[in-house]
Amino acid sequence: MPEYTGYRGTSLEFLKSNNLVVGDSVKITSDLTYSGIIMPRYEHQDDKHIVLKLNSGYNIGLDLDQISKVEKLSSSEKIRNIEQKIKKNPSLPNILLLSTGGTIASKVDYRTGAVTPILTAEELNSSVPELSKMANIDTEVLFSEYSENIMPDHWLQIANKLVEFADSKYSGIIIAHGTDTMHYTSSFLSFALAGYPIPVVLVGSQRSSDRASSDAALNLIGATRFLVECKTNGVYVVMHHDESDETISCHYGTRVRKNHTSKRSAFETIGDNPAYLIIDDKIQKNAKDDYFKTSEFTPKINLDARVALVKYYPGYRADLLEKIIDMDYRAIIFEGTGLGHIGKILYDNVKKAHEKGIFLGMTSQCIDGRVGMTVYESGRDLLNLGIVPLENMIPEVALVKAMWVLGNSDNPEEIKKIMLENISSEMSK
Amino acid sequence: MPEYTGYRGTSLEFLKSNNLVVGDSVKITSDLTYSGIIMPRYEHQDDKHIVLKLNSGYNIGLDLDQISKVEKLSSSEKIRNIEQKIKKNPSLPNILLLSTGGTIASKVDYRTGAVTPILTAEELNSSVPELSKMANIDTEVLFSEYSENIMPDHWLQIANKLVEFADSKYSGIIIAHGTDTMHYTSSFLSFALAGYPIPVVLVGSQRSSDRASSDAALNLIGATRFLVECKTNGVYVVMHHDESDETISCHYGTRVRKNHTSKRSAFETIGDNPAYLIIDDKIQKNAKDDYFKTSEFTPKINLDARVALVKYYPGYRADLLEKIIDMDYRAIIFEGTGLGHIGKILYDNVKKAHEKGIFLGMTSQCIDGRVGMTVYESGRDLLNLGIVPLENMIPEVALVKAMWVLGNSDNPEEIKKIMLENISSEMSK
Repeated sequence: MPEYTGYRGTSLEFLKSNNLVVGDSVKITSDLTYSGIIMPRYEHQDDKHIVLKLNSGYNIGLDLDQISKVEKLSSSEKIRNIEQKIKKNPSLPNILLLSTGGTIASKVDYRTGAVTPILTAEELNSSVPELSKMANIDTEVLFSEYSENIMPDHWLQIANKLVEFADSKYSGIIIAHGTDTMHYTSSFLSFALAGYPIPVVLVGSQRSSDRASSDAALNLIGATRFLVECKTNGVYVVMHHDESDETISCHYGTRVRKNHTSKRSAFETIGDNPAYLIIDDKIQKNAKDDYFKTSEFTPKINLDARVALVKYYPGYRADLLEKIIDMDYRAIIFEGTGLGHIGKILYDNVKKAHEKGIFLGMTSQCIDGRVGMTVYESGRDLLNLGIVPLENMIPEVALVKAMWVLGNSDNPEEIKKIMLENISSEMSK
Repeated sequence: MPEYTGYRGTSLEFLKSNNLVVGDSVKITSDLTYSGIIMPRYEHQDDKHIVLKLNSGYNIGLDLDQISKVEKLSSSEKIRNIEQKIKKNPSLPNILLLSTGGTIASKVDYRTGAVTPILTAEELNSSVPELSKMANIDTEVLFSEYSENIMPDHWLQIANKLVEFADSKYSGIIIAHGTDTMHYTSSFLSFALAGYPIPVVLVGSQRSSDRASSDAALNLIGATRFLVECKTNGVYVVMHHDESDETISCHYGTRVRKNHTSKRSAFETIGDNPAYLIIDDKIQKNAKDDYFKTSEFTPKINLDARVALVKYYPGYRADLLEKIIDMDYRAIIFEGTGLGHIGKILYDNVKKAHEKGIFLGMTSQCIDGRVGMTVYESGRDLLNLGIVPLENMIPEVALVKAMWVLGNSDNPEEIKKIMLENISSEMSK
C-alpha cells in the first residue's frame, strides 16, 4: 500500500513536511485536539484536508488551514501484525486457493479503514482458523481486481492457470473472486475447461472478511467442505443461501446470477434449486445430472470478445443496432422480451446482420424460463430472419458462451451447433 | 382478418380459382381424402402448400401438385357466432376496458387456429360471464399490437386517452396489454399521469382467453374486483400470483417485472410483496404508502425517447459506448454490476458523455436491491465522473422515467432532481 494513498498537492506536502504517512497515529490540534490514525483518501478528492480515524471509529476531515499543531504518537510500522507460519497436516487433503481480488480476498485495515488484499495462506488461516482443520490450503495471487474490472483476458489467465493443476495433488480449487461478475467468469471456465477433472469453486463475499457481518468465512468453509467431501467435478459458485448463517449454496456456474446488490444471499440458481446445499454438517445434493456433458478433459482456452449483448426495450433505436452491426462484432445475443421478441422496428437490421454473417442468438430479459419463438407471429418472423433461440440459457451465459464459441470456430454451422449443444449444464430441460 | 392470410403466389391462385378462403370447410383429395378447415399461413412460408386443420385437431400441409379434387363443404361466414347484446345494470359500477392488443385481448379461433382480437363488450362478457355481475364494462380498442411492438408513441396515445376519463362515470380503467412490455407501459403512465384520480390496472395473460389453461379470465375478474372494491388510485399490473388459480397479484406498476417467459405468475414485485393480493373473495392490502406522491393530478404527457439503456458486461467495448455518446442521446441509464459498477475501461467515455451534458444514471443488473456507489473505490470514481446513483429503481423503470423527465425538462439540474424524486413509488426505502 502506498504510504500517501490519495494525498496530493498541498495535503501531500503537509504529510511529508511533518514526516507523516498513512497509518501513523497522531494528535492534531485545529478547532479542537484530535487523536487518531491518518487515513488514506480517495482519488478525485480535494488536497485541502487530511482525514483521521478517531478512536471512536469515526472519520473526520481536518482543514489544513486550521491545523495549528501536529504530534506523531506512533508510526505505521510499529503496529503491524506479526504473521505466524503454519504447518501442513499430511493426513488432510490439499486445496489451492487462487486469488483474483474482490471483497473476499481483502480485509479492512481497522487502523486505516483501507481495504487490503489477503495474500498469504497464513493470513487466510488466521482469518478463518477452521480451514486448517479441513485441508492444507496453498494460496496464490493471480491478480487483484475488483470484479467489474475483470475482462475476458483475465478469464483466459485463470483458465490457463487451472490447466496447470488439472493433474495435481489438489482435491479441488477455490477461486476467490469479486461477486459482481463472478457468474460471467464461472461460465467461461465451464466452457473452456469442460471435463476438468477436479471441482472448482468460485467464492466471493458481500462484506469483507474482517467485518462482523462478513459472509467470507462461512463461504470459504462451505467451499472447502464441498471440495473435500463431494466426489464430483464442475465449476460452482459458493455463497450464502439465505440471510442466516446456516446454509451455503453451491450453484452450477452456468445457471447462476447475482440477483441482489447487497444481500449475502445475492446469488440464485435460475429456475432450479442450487446444485448442492451445505447445511451445517450435512451436504444435500439436488443436482440430478453431471455438470459437464463430456467426461474427457480437452481444454479449449480461446475466446473472441466481439459479441454484443443487446437488451431490447420500447424505444430501442434501429440506428443504434445498425451501428453495432457496422462494427466488427461477430455475434449479437439479444435479450428480448418475453418468449424472445424484439420490435418490428429492428427487423430490417436483423436481416442485415444475418446477411453479414453475424451469429444472432435470442435469450429473454425475463431471465427465468425458456424462449419460445414459435408461439407468436413475432417469434416466427424472427426465426425466419435467422435468429437462433437459445433455449433457457441466461443472457449473460449466452454472451460468454458465444465469446468462447467464436474463439474456437469460424464455421457458421458449427457455431450454431455448439451454441445449441449443452456443454456444461448451461441449459436445462 | 384477411381472407387469404399467409397465402401468396401459387397457393393464393389455387384458393382463388377454387373460390376458397381461410376458414372454409373443405374436402380435399390428394394421397388420401382429407376433411377440414383451411388455415391461415404465416409469412415467409412457401407457396406450394395449403394447410388444413383436420377434425382431429391436427394441422396438415397439402402439396398443391398432389391435389386431385377439391370440394367446399361450408363457407367461412356460415359458421360465425352470433353475438348477443347485453343490458347494463344501473346499480353496478362502470369500468372502461381499453384494449391495446396482446394475448389477453385475443382468442384463438378454434376453426382456424388464428389468434383474433376480442373487440366488443359482448364478446368479453360471453368469454368471462362473471364480469357482467360485477360491473358494467364498456370496451374500446385503442390499437392492436403485440407488446414488443408497443413504442413510446403508443404510451403517449394511451396516456392521452386516459386523460379523457380522469373525470368520468368510470370507477376505474382496465388496460388490456401484451405482457412482454406491460411493465414499461405501466411505468410511463405512472409518471405522465401522476395523481390520476381513479385506479388504472394493466391486465395481460400468458395464454389466450379461450384456452383451457388461460389466465385471462381470472386476471380480468381480479382486476375488476380490485377496481370496484379498493378505494385507491395508482397504476397497477394485475396477474396471477402463483401457478394456482386462487390468488391474483396487484403489483405497483413501477416496481414490477416480467421474470419468467411463460409461467402465469411471470410478474413479480421486485424486493417486496405485491401491493394487493386478491385471494378468492378477500383482498389483502400490503401497500403501506400511497402510490402517487402527489395528490394533485397535473398530467405531463411528454417524452423524449433519446435514452439508451446500457447493460455492462465483461468485454463491453469502449468504442461501442463512444458510438452511443456520439449519437444524439440525451441520457444513458447504465445497468451496472452489483452495487452499481462498470469497468474502468469505460471511464474515459463516461467522462466524455458527462462533459457533453448527457444525463448518466446508474441502476443494477442484479435487479433487486439498491445501488450503493460509496462502498467501493469504483463506485466513488463513477460518482466523481458524474454518474447519478438511482437508488433501487429497476433499470427498465429508470429508462422510462428518464424518457419522461427529458420530455418535460431541458434543465440538467432539474432533470437530476426529478430523477431522484419519488414520483410514483418507483423507489422504496
